[in-house]
Formats: sequence, structure tokens, C-alpha cells
Amino acid sequence: MGRGKGNLIVGQSGGPTVAINSSLSGIIHEALAQKSVGEIYGMYRGIRGLLNEQLIDLRRQPVQVIEGLRQTPGAALGSVRYKVTEGDYERILDVLKRRNIRYVHYIGGNDSSDTSWKLSKLAAAAGYELSVIAVPKTVDNDLVHTDHCPGYPSAARFVAMATRDTGRDTESMGPESPIKILEVMGRNAGWLTAAAALARQEEGDAPHLVYVPERPVGVDQLLHDVEHCYREREYVVIAMSEGAQESPGKTLGEEYGSKEVDVFGHRMKGGVSDFVATLLSGKLGLKVRLDKPNYLQRSLTACASAVDLDEAYRVGRQAVKEAVSGRREAMITLVRDAGPGYHCSLAVASLADVANKEKMLPAEFMNTEGNYPTQAFLTYARPLVGELLPAYERLNKHFV
Amino acid sequence: MGRGKGNLIVGQSGGPTVAINSSLSGIIHEALAQKSVGEIYGMYRGIRGLLNEQLIDLRRQPVQVIEGLRQTPGAALGSVRYKVTEGDYERILDVLKRRNIRYVHYIGGNDSSDTSWKLSKLAAAAGYELSVIAVPKTVDNDLVHTDHCPGYPSAARFVAMATRDTGRDTESMGPESPIKILEVMGRNAGWLTAAAALARQEEGDAPHLVYVPERPVGVDQLLHDVEHCYREREYVVIAMSEGAQESPGKTLGEEYGSKEVDVFGHRMKGGVSDFVATLLSGKLGLKVRLDKPNYLQRSLTACASAVDLDEAYRVGRQAVKEAVSGRREAMITLVRDAGPGYHCSLAVASLADVANKEKMLPAEFMNTEGNYPTQAFLTYARPLVGELLPAYERLNKHFV
Repeated sequence: MGRGKGNLIVGQSGGPTVAINSSLSGIIHEALAQKSVGEIYGMYRGIRGLLNEQLIDLRRQPVQVIEGLRQTPGAALGSVRYKVTEGDYERILDVLKRRNIRYVHYIGGNDSSDTSWKLSKLAAAAGYELSVIAVPKTVDNDLVHTDHCPGYPSAARFVAMATRDTGRDTESMGPESPIKILEVMGRNAGWLTAAAALARQEEGDAPHLVYVPERPVGVDQLLHDVEHCYREREYVVIAMSEGAQESPGKTLGEEYGSKEVDVFGHRMKGGVSDFVATLLSGKLGLKVRLDKPNYLQRSLTACASAVDLDEAYRVGRQAVKEAVSGRREAMITLVRDAGPGYHCSLAVASLADVANKEKMLPAEFMNTEGNYPTQAFLTYARPLVGELLPAYERLNKHFV
Repeated sequence: MGRGKGNLIVGQSGGPTVAINSSLSGIIHEALAQKSVGEIYGMYRGIRGLLNEQLIDLRRQPVQVIEGLRQTPGAALGSVRYKVTEGDYERILDVLKRRNIRYVHYIGGNDSSDTSWKLSKLAAAAGYELSVIAVPKTVDNDLVHTDHCPGYPSAARFVAMATRDTGRDTESMGPESPIKILEVMGRNAGWLTAAAALARQEEGDAPHLVYVPERPVGVDQLLHDVEHCYREREYVVIAMSEGAQESPGKTLGEEYGSKEVDVFGHRMKGGVSDFVATLLSGKLGLKVRLDKPNYLQRSLTACASAVDLDEAYRVGRQAVKEAVSGRREAMITLVRDAGPGYHCSLAVASLADVANKEKMLPAEFMNTEGNYPTQAFLTYARPLVGELLPAYERLNKHFV
């Protein structure tokens, strides 16, 4: 069996984040420190790398590479979107046994926790001693049983900073092009979109309206909201989830989008913000501008949250500790301490309780009108994102 | 006449930048230091503020506000897009005379230098002693007679960082969604799009293709370029100017875009990157993802260039020095010193030589194929943008 009691493998899955490699770095560092860990393998492009036996040797990486991963965006091992099927089970078990892999760490979100749970059950059924400890990662922040998910604080910081900055830009242009829509990731859950509200430092600051999938908004209400805000200050900054809904289950404008065809005759997907932009300019006669930073939300390290990078690393180390201590299956979770001051401790949840579940923005995190986050949300999210710096100034409007 | 020889007015015009308020801060600081300057007025929303006599008293601003402007995005005075017409002349001259304004500073790009030049000629023709010293500002970097324009280095830094980070994200996903298009501002000039090339730190890094308006690319050539890059490494990151052309004067896909109508029956503008995305997915069968950060390019302070903020401030101060020293009209310019090391000195150009002229990316800044910037461009742009930090790592692909 060589060095240690068994070999370890780690994979990354789903959309990358700014912090996903920080978790990988934590796993490698802890694995190197644990005597019971033999070889340290990386799945090249997620579970597919395990299936194809494309394994990267993580013991043969220079020290500065493992350290540098803590601030490198993207998934350094390569990622994948692949749902394990029953047809894959035999092959997976074969590779695990042949390679004497006893510790599996999968860094990912909902689908990944499902994959981890399947692997764990598979090994148990086959009587193969295996520890599967999942590491949470998703900018959507929708995993249950954890205060938040690594990756979310940095993406939330991007959204807050982008809202603050594009807000100043929009304010400058005034009535010439008064409406700005920032389209934010998150098809089902509004956690990331709600983070836009962290941009507001003074009364009247952007954002002015925040729409999340959990709170559908009819077209008439939307028009009313925007018109009301515009009358107040001559410009309106809207943070709009890409999954914002018109009514439960129906994305805003989806019936319009689906009628359009592209240059090849394919039906075009209805983009929520494109629809809303067209709606507002058509019905209110106001110029609308869009920002669609898309994948920059989960990759721009210039907006990384220091809390996030640190926690992601700690969660990675903890996963290995749990594995070598004999725990058979779990996802590492973050548990917020009582305070004063922000700190999260590490704990575990059973994969059975995490897999295939989605945590939506709770009702108390949005106002009654469903168009702005509450103080309770801000209190939750602010320590994750940190202070927005530098501080900005505004000229006093002393007219002569 | 009160304090000083005459009063000073400053306005901001066109699209804001991360650095436009740094120039404003420099102007106010220098004006406060000059004994010959009496009142210091700000035009509320550009030349319209002068026309409407909506003037902000800049002597009545707290010290920390003027200092804080150096790092505040947006146009603190409010901006405007308005072309002065002959019908406005009488009114402008009347306000200038009545308010004893002797120094005018207009911070802006091409249109603003034209406005400044008109004001200068107007005063000269009326025999009214006036100094008009324009302050360059544009993320497009297309003003002539200056090494570069304040505002450009920060926007270029955003584009470089965004390309580097979304490049890592795209690389992670590999063949699952292998094509990323980053749409970059600049309808006529490719300076900002070319800055994407600063993201490349190792051979093979993103970006892989860079398309600028100055170098039209036919649809067949585009398909060939992308296919070639995809064969090499299974993913392709493209920096695409919003004004990229198919042939001289014809935006890529403009004939397709113009055929489509929105939900209200209005014709939709053809977005270059949307067209290219549809083209690539249709013809090559590859998944294409888009980033359209739009106004974040000119506002996200997290990507501000330190060189830019400093130069913008210096240019502002210099404008006031030139005005009080008796210069009647000019735009402040940046002149790159011989080196070693990067430094720009300040000089002046006549508004007559600047107004209504556009500086395109020179031929030697793009390769023969017209799909990537040259080393000469990188040498020009790198000191403006500065080092991209933190350094990123990549795992060595030691397969077991």
C-alpha cells in the first residue's frame, strides 16, 4: 500500500468561483500534512477524470503553485457538469479500488453534493471502506445546513461593488439615460442579486430596486416601481436576477423571448434584462442601459472577499481532517458564531441532508413589496462581503 | 470683482470614467491655490449647467470631499451629451460676462474639445478675455496629440483583468462551453479592446483573438480563426470590440440585427457579440458564453490604474496653471518621457488641432492577420495599466 493508509482524490465541479482553488489549496496542504494519506490525486475535469482515470499527481506540484492557488480564479483541476448515472458505478468503484483511493473530496454545489452522496452509498453497498467529504462551493449560496457557501462572499462583493460603481455612472448621466439594469447570476435563488443592496451607503444611493426569483413581480408592478423611483431622483438603478419571475415558475418576459428567432432560425432564449429594458423604454419612454457582467461575477479577483478566500481554504483543510479521522460521509459546513464580531466555525452535515436540496432567500430577507432586501439580509451579508473601499464622496449641491 | 482677477468654471462631459473626478479634484485644488482665481464654479451637468446658470459653488466644499473625489467614479458635477449650437452662443457669453468668468475648464473627449474650441472662438470674436483649457478624458483613448487619455488606463486595466479572469473560468470548463466573448467598449477605435492582450502572461493564455474596428474581419475569416484556436487548446477567449466590423464601415452582423423587432415592434440594434455568438454556435456547434460588462468598464474602481488616477489629477492641476498664466486656449496633453521607466510630462496642444479629430489604433499595433495586438502595442500600454496582481498559478499536468 506504500505511504499512508490510503490514497486521496479531489475534484472540482460546476461553475468555478474566485475561491474554489483556495479550497483545493487547503485540501492539498492538509493532505500533505497527514501521515495517513498516501498519494494525492486530482480528477482532471471533475468526476469524468475519475471515470477516464485522468488523474493529476498533486504531490508533484511546486510549493508556490499550491500556495498561489489560494488567489487563482477558475477551477485549476478543470471542472465538469456531469451527472453520474448507474452505468458509471462499476467503473468508478473499479478505479477507486485499483488505486486504493480511500478519501474522496468533491468541491462543488448542489449537483456535486448529489454526486458525493451517490459515491458514498456506492462504496458502502460494495463494502469498500471510503470516506467522501464534500466541500461546498457556489456563488448561488443555495446549499442547506451551512451559514453560506464559499464562493458566494466574493461574488456578492463583486455585485455590491459593481452596483455602487455603475450607480455613480448612472447618476452622472441623469435624465439622459436614467435607467440602469445590472443583470445578476442566480436562476432560482436571489442571494447574489440581493447583495446589490450592500452598495447603498447613503439614503438614495443605488440600487433602488432589487428583483429576485423568490418574489415574482408583474409587469404592471415593475413599471409602477420604476416610475416611482424615477420621479424621486431622475435615475433608477435596478439589480435584476437573471431568473426574475413574472409569476411563480414563469421567468419575466419568457413568452416574448421564445417567439424570437436568431439569424439561423433557432429560437432565442428570452433574456430577462433585455426584456425589461425593452419594456421600460417602450412603456416609459426612458433610455435604459444594461450591464451583464455574467462570468466576471464568479471570476474577478479584484473583487474577492478576504473572508471568502480564508474560509474556502479552511473548509478544504477541514475536509481532509474529517476524512482521516474516520468520518465516512459529510459536507463541511460554516456555522456563524454568536459574536461580537464575525467568525464562522466549521462543522459537518450529512450528504443525505444536503444533496438535491436548495436554500432559497428566506421571506424575512426581502421587504413586503418584494423589491428590496431588508436590514436582516444586510446584517447577514455585510460581514461576508466586507467594507466597500475606497469611500466615495459627493459634492454638496450648493448652487450659487 | 472681489477676490482674484476673475472667476473659474469647470464642467464634465460625455461618459464618465474612473478618473474624471480625479481631474476635477486637481482643478479645484489648484484653483484654491491660485490667488488670481476668484469664485470656483461647477457646471451642473456640463455645458447645460452653464446655459441654465445652474452653478455649484466649489469653494463651499469640505476638504475631504475634494480629496475623496480622487477615487470616486462617475462625474461628480453631473455629465451631459449636448452639442453647443449657434443659438446658444449669446446666452453663454452673457453668463460668462455677468459672472466675470475668465477661466473655463471642460473635462471630456472629442465632443468636449469641440465645445471648448467653440467657446474659445466665441469669446475671441466678442473681444471677451477668456481662457479655455480643456482636460482630456475618454476610455476610448482616441484624442490626438496626447500619448494617451486619462480614463483609458483604468478602463484598459479592467479589460485586461476581466480577460485574465474570465479566461481562467473558460479554461476550467474546457470543451463543455469552450468559447467566451468579452464585448469591449469603443465603437470606432480599438484601443480598449486591444488592452485585453495585456492579460496574457504565458503562451496560450487568454485572450486568443482580439478584434478591433480598425481591422474588419469577414465572417469566414472569423470562423476560421476560432476553429483554428479551438483545435489548438479546446477553448477560445475572444475580446471583441462593440464596433468590430465585417468590412469597412459595416458592423459585424448589422444586416441581421436590423431585421429583428422587439416585443413592441421596434427594430432591435444588432449587438456584435450576440451576432458572433449565434454565428459560432450555429456554424461550429460550440457553446458560446458572453460577458458584457458595459458601463463597469469605465466605473469599476477595483480595477483603477494608479498611474491613471495620478495623471488625471496632475492634468487637472496643470489646466488651471496654464489658464492663470495667460494661455488663451489649449488641451493639456501627456508626453511620454524617454525613460528608463515610465513617466509622462505635461504639455499643451491647440484646441484647433484636437477638436473633431479621432486617433485610431495605428497599423503597427495589430498583427498582419488583424486578430491580435503586437508587441509594440503591449510596450505602449503595459506601463499605463500596471502589473496584474495577484499572480496566478497553474497546476503542472503530471498525469499518473
